Amino acid sequence: MDTKAQASFQEKALELLTADADKIARLIRVQMDNLTMPSCPLYEEVLDTQMFGLSREIEFAARLGLIEREQGKKILDSLEKELSLLHDAYTDK
Amino acid sequence: MDTKAQASFQEKALELLTADADKIARLIRVQMDNLTMPSCPLYEEVLDTQMFGLSREIEFAARLGLIEREQGKKILDSLEKELSLLHDAYTDK
Repeated sequence: MDTKAQASFQEKALELLTADADKIARLIRVQMDNLTMPSCPLYEEVLDTQMFGLSREIEFAARLGLIEREQGKKILDSLEKELSLLHDAYTDK
Repeated sequence: MDTKAQASFQEKALELLTADADKIARLIRVQMDNLTMPSCPLYEEVLDTQMFGLSREIEFAARLGLIEREQGKKILDSLEKELSLLHDAYTDK
């Protein structure tokens, strides 16, 4: 397979996945910045749904050989960490 | 971009999406073949979750330019039809 074409799809895939991960990170931060608001179960469900959607995109990209599994794992791990900080912030309140 | 390399990713993407859609179709058919069993809300939730996952994969593939939006829509529409037959079968019982 042409290495340049392959690289282009790989770059684009990583770009899209990173953009989607950033969107979720922003959702988490909005909630973090508003800890005075009561914890909203609906908000948590939206975050969970978005995380699941992103994990399916990452899995799909990995199966296609567009990203390394390790790259995908890093993106998800980093978001999981932010999510768990958010949960902790509510638990400690 | 090299046309051959592009075609290869496109073929692989469609192959994976079709395989995932087939898995969901099999889940639907298993339930259809067992209509004597009570309708199981957990089963429906699994199907909904799988449908959402597939729709995210399809959306991702379309954004990458690996499949036509129309192709993705057809895959989902066909599954939606089978799902609605299943719902009808339970409603008519």
